[in-house]
Amino acid sequence: MKILVVNAGSSSLKYQIIDAETEKTIGKGLVERIGLDGSSIKQEGQNGKKLVIKRDLKDHTAAFELVIKSLLDAENGIIKSMDEIMAIGHRVLHSAEDFSESVLVTLDVLKICKRNVPLGELHMPANISCMEVCMKLMPKTPNVAVFDTSFHLTMPPHAYMYAIKYEDYEMYQLRRYGFHGTSHRYVSSEAIKYMGSKEGLKIITCHLGNGSSIAAIRDGKCIDTTMGLTPLEGLVMGTRSGDIDPAAIAYLAKKKGQTAEEVVTYLNKECGFLGICGYSDNRDVVEKAKNGDYHAQLACDMFAYRIKKYIGAYTVALGGLDCIVFTGGIGENSRSSRKDIMQGLETLGIHFDYAKNEEVKGGCFSDLTAESSKVKVLVIPTNEELVIARDAKRIALEKKEI
Amino acid sequence: MKILVVNAGSSSLKYQIIDAETEKTIGKGLVERIGLDGSSIKQEGQNGKKLVIKRDLKDHTAAFELVIKSLLDAENGIIKSMDEIMAIGHRVLHSAEDFSESVLVTLDVLKICKRNVPLGELHMPANISCMEVCMKLMPKTPNVAVFDTSFHLTMPPHAYMYAIKYEDYEMYQLRRYGFHGTSHRYVSSEAIKYMGSKEGLKIITCHLGNGSSIAAIRDGKCIDTTMGLTPLEGLVMGTRSGDIDPAAIAYLAKKKGQTAEEVVTYLNKECGFLGICGYSDNRDVVEKAKNGDYHAQLACDMFAYRIKKYIGAYTVALGGLDCIVFTGGIGENSRSSRKDIMQGLETLGIHFDYAKNEEVKGGCFSDLTAESSKVKVLVIPTNEELVIARDAKRIALEKKEI
Repeated sequence: MKILVVNAGSSSLKYQIIDAETEKTIGKGLVERIGLDGSSIKQEGQNGKKLVIKRDLKDHTAAFELVIKSLLDAENGIIKSMDEIMAIGHRVLHSAEDFSESVLVTLDVLKICKRNVPLGELHMPANISCMEVCMKLMPKTPNVAVFDTSFHLTMPPHAYMYAIKYEDYEMYQLRRYGFHGTSHRYVSSEAIKYMGSKEGLKIITCHLGNGSSIAAIRDGKCIDTTMGLTPLEGLVMGTRSGDIDPAAIAYLAKKKGQTAEEVVTYLNKECGFLGICGYSDNRDVVEKAKNGDYHAQLACDMFAYRIKKYIGAYTVALGGLDCIVFTGGIGENSRSSRKDIMQGLETLGIHFDYAKNEEVKGGCFSDLTAESSKVKVLVIPTNEELVIARDAKRIALEKKEI
Repeated sequence: MKILVVNAGSSSLKYQIIDAETEKTIGKGLVERIGLDGSSIKQEGQNGKKLVIKRDLKDHTAAFELVIKSLLDAENGIIKSMDEIMAIGHRVLHSAEDFSESVLVTLDVLKICKRNVPLGELHMPANISCMEVCMKLMPKTPNVAVFDTSFHLTMPPHAYMYAIKYEDYEMYQLRRYGFHGTSHRYVSSEAIKYMGSKEGLKIITCHLGNGSSIAAIRDGKCIDTTMGLTPLEGLVMGTRSGDIDPAAIAYLAKKKGQTAEEVVTYLNKECGFLGICGYSDNRDVVEKAKNGDYHAQLACDMFAYRIKKYIGAYTVALGGLDCIVFTGGIGENSRSSRKDIMQGLETLGIHFDYAKNEEVKGGCFSDLTAESSKVKVLVIPTNEELVIARDAKRIALEKKEI
């Protein structure tokens, strides 16, 4: 049997077919520009099977219909019948405070997700559309929602509350949620396997990619994370500012004659690496910095400095530290960024094997701990699709048993 | 000779007369509700001399004229003639990037201060008015501007830059400045005296009052601080939220139908302790928490947790830690808050003398370091007026020599 993993963005739809037994990816595809001009689907199967279709797709329902057609394509498809799919796992942006773990999608679950649309106005409607179209087109196949925020719901109130009016927290659900939960969950559980035991283990997971976040994890449970109500808070990212004086929004709004929403869009799309030095991709930034570009070097310095500060903050929050994990595109591949981040952490008992860091292959598990270190430093490739597939399989089987 | 220290707020004016030799305060006063209905002046001199006048004061110029009259009052005044004043020290909110130390006020200095009004729209016009009226009414007396932000201008770019468009930093002077600089400067220099030598010394100063900020200081120089473009960023304060996802401003603006400026005013005036539990004064919050009030306990927990995180972050930024200093109304007086903050910092080699903490008198120097501690923990009462008076005296004497 197979699992279909669906990851819908505001105008995109990524999917994978994963073998439920071997956990291998059998094929995957991407629909782009949904609801825009020039939408298209690209799909890759095994043995070099490829498929590209350009067709206007007015919404995620239309997109999903084309996905099914492509999966079943006689010549370049990935499966023979939709009956091969034992479960569909959906990456859903926001759990609010309602779902502390993955759930079987029911009409009640959909109702709650719809109520939580204001917490993720770009992604949630796409996520909901995909769940609804799957229930309609494959009514016998269980759908499982895997929320990007659930893993962080174990945070205590002093970590998730903002210091605003308490009734505004209650009325508007305004608090820290954190994102990349599936990734932090996966790599922390892999780190726990490697370390041997979960009990008392204090881990900081650094998911560093185009979007970046850090989580503090004790006994396998998240106690704090850098992203907040939205993915804007925290680290310096590809195009996101991360932390900034909240008064800067009013200051910029006044200076630029913009609304709060326009300033926040600017902070999400035009800032971060892109704003500081003109390049959003970490590889370009590192390359330019090596060639002596002042702004690129500043971007690298700011990126590393803010991560270092959070590692210090979370070491205190955890009451000590046993392990740091790097993951995500930058965390798994950028020797230069890992080196910048690790410099100066010796005061926390963290010693890094700089020589080994220069040798290891990108995107692979590696242990970069120096011999003298009290804290393990690991690179663990993330695999959010695998977590979604596993949750979907487990919950589908539980449903069957009932 | 004597020094007049002037500290003007948007609708208030505090002043002190300090003896230039003994550094003792000879008298002080406060003008309130300037430009509002029911303005008044209250002044206290030595030997129980007191003076209260209620009179409408339309601006800081009118207020200052009343200050001079009160200082010289035949019966309850503080001095006999304004000629006794050798220099006037003005607390000025914002140096921008223009003044890394205190300066003699000239027409050029005033011109630069006026250009920097957008960085402190409430305080800067009042500060400028006071300097101008002093130059007009006492043309022979040197005026010295002591900026609340100057001490932090030694921060490196990776600490003071926000990850926004570089040209917006340049065009709008949008960066981290930090505040309470005079206080952080004073208590860190006192800590250095106590520790013996400045070289390599790594200090974290916690100025905790109704407004609160922390600074990281190496070799006597600030390398990072929690307040930012404005005093809103950083810690949980009496009525200020401190750090929050910047996207929350747009979210609240939409939910409440408010502008960015209205939301930021809310974050400045209705949040922090007040927002969480309904009390803005730390003493009330601690008292309510002791009586089992959930929201007051949450406010205490959030306050302490965020400070702990910054202590961890700055320990990494400094590459180690030699000394923590508590100052400000809460830092000097709240045993309960100091205890909450210190719990869990053992992982940084910080051990606190909890027993002594319960015994020491508020507002006094005390060394609360436990024997086993690698890091000193000190309480040092701040004295911003003294720093302003010393700077004013020094710069006035330098001027005389020229």
